[in-house]
Amino acid sequence: MIIKSERVSLKHLLTVEALTDQEVMGLIRRGQEFKRGAKWTPAKNQYFATNLFFENSTRTHKSFEVAEKKLGINVIEFDESMSSVQKGETLYDTVLTMSAIGVDVAVIRHGDENYYDELIQSRTIQCSIINGGDGSGQHPTQCLLDLLTIYEEFGSFENLKVAIVGDITHSRVAKSNMQMLKRLGAKVYFSGPETWYDKSFEVYGHYLPLDELVEEVDVMMLLRVQHERHDEHESFSKEEYHQQYGLTIERAAKMKEHAIIMHPAPVNRDVEIADSLVESYKSRIVTQMSNGVFVRMAILEAILEGKS
Amino acid sequence: MIIKSERVSLKHLLTVEALTDQEVMGLIRRGQEFKRGAKWTPAKNQYFATNLFFENSTRTHKSFEVAEKKLGINVIEFDESMSSVQKGETLYDTVLTMSAIGVDVAVIRHGDENYYDELIQSRTIQCSIINGGDGSGQHPTQCLLDLLTIYEEFGSFENLKVAIVGDITHSRVAKSNMQMLKRLGAKVYFSGPETWYDKSFEVYGHYLPLDELVEEVDVMMLLRVQHERHDEHESFSKEEYHQQYGLTIERAAKMKEHAIIMHPAPVNRDVEIADSLVESYKSRIVTQMSNGVFVRMAILEAILEGKS
Amino acid sequence: MIIKSERVSLKHLLTVEALTDQEVMGLIRRGQEFKRGAKWTPAKNQYFATNLFFENSTRTHKSFEVAEKKLGINVIEFDESMSSVQKGETLYDTVLTMSAIGVDVAVIRHGDENYYDELIQSRTIQCSIINGGDGSGQHPTQCLLDLLTIYEEFGSFENLKVAIVGDITHSRVAKSNMQMLKRLGAKVYFSGPETWYDKSFEVYGHYLPLDELVEEVDVMMLLRVQHERHDEHESFSKEEYHQQYGLTIERAAKMKEHAIIMHPAPVNRDVEIADSLVESYKSRIVTQMSNGVFVRMAILEAILEGKS
Repeated sequence: MIIKSERVSLKHLLTVEALTDQEVMGLIRRGQEFKRGAKWTPAKNQYFATNLFFENSTRTHKSFEVAEKKLGINVIEFDESMSSVQKGETLYDTVLTMSAIGVDVAVIRHGDENYYDELIQSRTIQCSIINGGDGSGQHPTQCLLDLLTIYEEFGSFENLKVAIVGDITHSRVAKSNMQMLKRLGAKVYFSGPETWYDKSFEVYGHYLPLDELVEEVDVMMLLRVQHERHDEHESFSKEEYHQQYGLTIERAAKMKEHAIIMHPAPVNRDVEIADSLVESYKSRIVTQMSNGVFVRMAILEAILEGKS
Repeated sequence: MIIKSERVSLKHLLTVEALTDQEVMGLIRRGQEFKRGAKWTPAKNQYFATNLFFENSTRTHKSFEVAEKKLGINVIEFDESMSSVQKGETLYDTVLTMSAIGVDVAVIRHGDENYYDELIQSRTIQCSIINGGDGSGQHPTQCLLDLLTIYEEFGSFENLKVAIVGDITHSRVAKSNMQMLKRLGAKVYFSGPETWYDKSFEVYGHYLPLDELVEEVDVMMLLRVQHERHDEHESFSKEEYHQQYGLTIERAAKMKEHAIIMHPAPVNRDVEIADSLVESYKSRIVTQMSNGVFVRMAILEAILEGKS
Repeated sequence: MIIKSERVSLKHLLTVEALTDQEVMGLIRRGQEFKRGAKWTPAKNQYFATNLFFENSTRTHKSFEVAEKKLGINVIEFDESMSSVQKGETLYDTVLTMSAIGVDVAVIRHGDENYYDELIQSRTIQCSIINGGDGSGQHPTQCLLDLLTIYEEFGSFENLKVAIVGDITHSRVAKSNMQMLKRLGAKVYFSGPETWYDKSFEVYGHYLPLDELVEEVDVMMLLRVQHERHDEHESFSKEEYHQQYGLTIERAAKMKEHAIIMHPAPVNRDVEIADSLVESYKSRIVTQMSNGVFVRMAILEAILEGKS
C-alpha cells in the first residue's frame, strides 16, 4: 500500500473510521514530523481552542493543551463546575457560546454517545469539533496515537500481529483500533475475560487464550479495566484479574524479542500489567503519551488550516 | 447628540451609570473598531489580568478571557474551590494577593452587592477592578454589549423603542439598561409578570401588555428567568410563563420587519423565547455574545492604557 | 561572609536546606535582579511548566503562575477534581504523564511529606520538581522569599535578630527559616504558645516571652494559626490568642523604629496580628507576596537553564 503524505484537511474529527486510509497515514506522518521538530506556520495571527471535558481526564485533556500551546493557539479553559451548565445550560448552548466568542475549535469529552451530532448540524455553531471521547463510543485521537506508535516502531501495519486484551466491550479505543488495524493490513487477536468479549468482534479477529497469544504477537495492547463503567458483580479481584488476564512478568518473558507492550493508561498497576513492566524496555506506554501530543498537533493543524 | 469618539481612560469599571455619555459612546465605538480588526498597541511589554468568578458563568467569564488573550494580556486563572478562600481568606485579601503578585486588572463576579467598595478604597490594592456582576446589583459589561448591539443595528438610540420583558426585579442588567437607554435617547417599555415589576421603574418607562408591545417596538429585550435567585412560590410552570410572558412564535410573527430580539443568555429555551427563535434571523442573541468580546476589549484597553 | 553571585543551576528544588549558602544568595540576588526588571533569555524556544496543587493555595500557586508567565513559559493547568486522580491514578503516574507530554518542570504541593522521593528516583520521569509544600514538611520557596525580603531590607543577615512567633510545630516554613537564618548568621528567637514549641528548636535559638522579644528584634516573623491542621482541643479563642501571642497594636508600638513585620499569609486578621497592622508601614507582608514572584522566577530560571 503506497500512500502519499499529502497534507490532510479536516472540518471536524469525530470518528477515526470516517477518515480515509490516506488521511490516517497523512496524520501519522505529520505527527512524526512534529515529533522531529517541524513547525506550523499558521495563516491567521491568532487561533482559539477550548477543551470541554465533562469527564475526568489527565492524559487526553493535558496533551491537547500542550499540543495547542506548542502550535501557539490560545487556549480557553473550561470548568463545568463553575460554568452556566450549573444553571442548566445545555452542551449545545455551551458550544454555541464558545463559537460566538471566537473559539475556532472545541475539543470535547462527554458521557453521551454521539453528543456531537447536534453540534455539527447547527447552522450557527461555527467552530470545529474534535471528539475527545463520547461515552462508550469513540476516542479517535487515542486510536491515532496508538497507530502512530505502532507505525513508528515497525514502519508498516502489513501482517503485524496485534493482540487487544481486556475490557474490550467498554473500551472506546479498542473498537476503533480493531477496525483501523484491520483496514491498514494488520492481523488482530483478542483475549481477556469472555464476558467482556462480543461475537461482533469476530469480523476483525479471533479470540485466543492469553498464554497462546503472548508468544505470537508483535504488539500486546492491554486495555484499562474501567471500574467506573462497570456493575459491581462484573468485577474481579485485582489478583485474580492479573493472574488470569494480566500481563504478568512470566507472560512478558515469553513475548518475542522485538514485541512491544501498549496500554492507553491510566494503568491499574499489577492488574492489567505487572508494575515493573510499565516502564520496562518493551513498554511503549510512555511513548504513547508523548506521541499523543504530536498526533494531536497534526489534527489541530489539519482543522485550522481549513479555517484560515 | 454629537459625541466625539475620543479614547476613553478608566481606573475601574464598577457601574455603567458612572460613565459619561461620551465614555459610553467611546467604548461602543472602540468595540466596533476591535470587531473590524483593530489592534491594541500596549505601552508595557506584559500585562496581567485575573478573572475571579465566585458565581457560575460561561459567557461573561469566557468572553473576558478571549478579550484578554486577543489583547495579548497574560491571564491568571482562579479556582475558588482550590484557593485559600477555603481557609477563610476574604475577597479583600484575595484581591490584595493578586495585586501584590503583579496583576494589573481583576475582573470580579461576586454574590455580594457593592463588593467592590472596600477594594477600591484600599491604599494597598493597586489593580483595577472590572465588575463582572455583583449579586442583584450591577453588570456593566453586559449593559455595554447590549448597547453596542443596538447601536450597531440602528446607528443611533434616538427615539428607538425598546421593550424589557420578564424578570426585571432580579436582573442586574435590566436596571442598567433602562437607565442608559433613556439617557441615550431611547424610549423604554416594560412587560412580564407584574410581581417582577416595580413602581420605581416608572421613571424610565411604562408597563404595557406584551401583546400590545410586540407590534410596536424596535427591540424586544427578553430577560432570563433566574430560577437560582427565586423563592419557590414565585415560580411559574415553563408552559405558563411561555404562553403569558414569553416570545412565542405567534408573537414574534407580529414584530416589525426590522425589529430585533435580544436576550443576555443563557436562554431558557421555550420559556422566555421559543426554541426556534433563538437562532432566527431576527435574533441578535449570538451577536450579543460576539459583541461581548469586543466591548470588553475596549474596556480592558481603556483601563490598561492608564497603567502604562 | 563574601559570596559570589554566580548563576545558580538546579535539577530540582525540594528543600532549602539542601542548597549551599552560595546557591541561596545567588537565588536571592537573581530575585532582586528580576525585581529590577531583568529579563531571561531562554535557550529553548518553548518551555512547559505545570502547577500540581493538591492542597488549597492562592499565593504560592498564583505567584508561580505569574513567575512562569513573566518568563514566557507555557503553563499547563491541572485540576485534580477533573483529572484521572479521580479514577485512582497516583501522583507518580500523574507526574509521569506530565513528563511524557513534554512538561519541563512541575511545581507540586501535596499533603504527603517527602512525596517527591519516588519522583526524583524515577528513571522515566524527566521533568524537574519544585516543592511547593509537602504536608508539614518543607516549603522552600516561601523560605527563599522570606530571606529575600529580609536581605532586601537589611542588606545582610549577620547578627540580625529575628523572632519566629506562633504555630511553629505545624509550620513548614518556620523550620526552614530557623535553620537558614542561623546558617546565614542571624540570631533566632521563638515565642508563642508553649504547646506549639518543641525542645528540638533550641539548636537554632531560644524561647522568650513575647513582650520581651518585641522590643529587641529587627524582624517579627508571625506564623499563621493553621486551623486546618489542628485538633479541636489545641485551639484558642481568637481574642485569647491575639492578646497572649498576637502582635497587638500595643506590642507593635514597642518595636524598634527600623524593625519590620512579616507573615507568610493568609493572615488571620486580629489573631496573629492586629487588622490595621497588616498594611502598616512596618509591615512587609505585601512585599513578601511580591517578592515571591521574583524569587520563583530565579528558581525557574536556575532549573530551566540546565535543561537547554
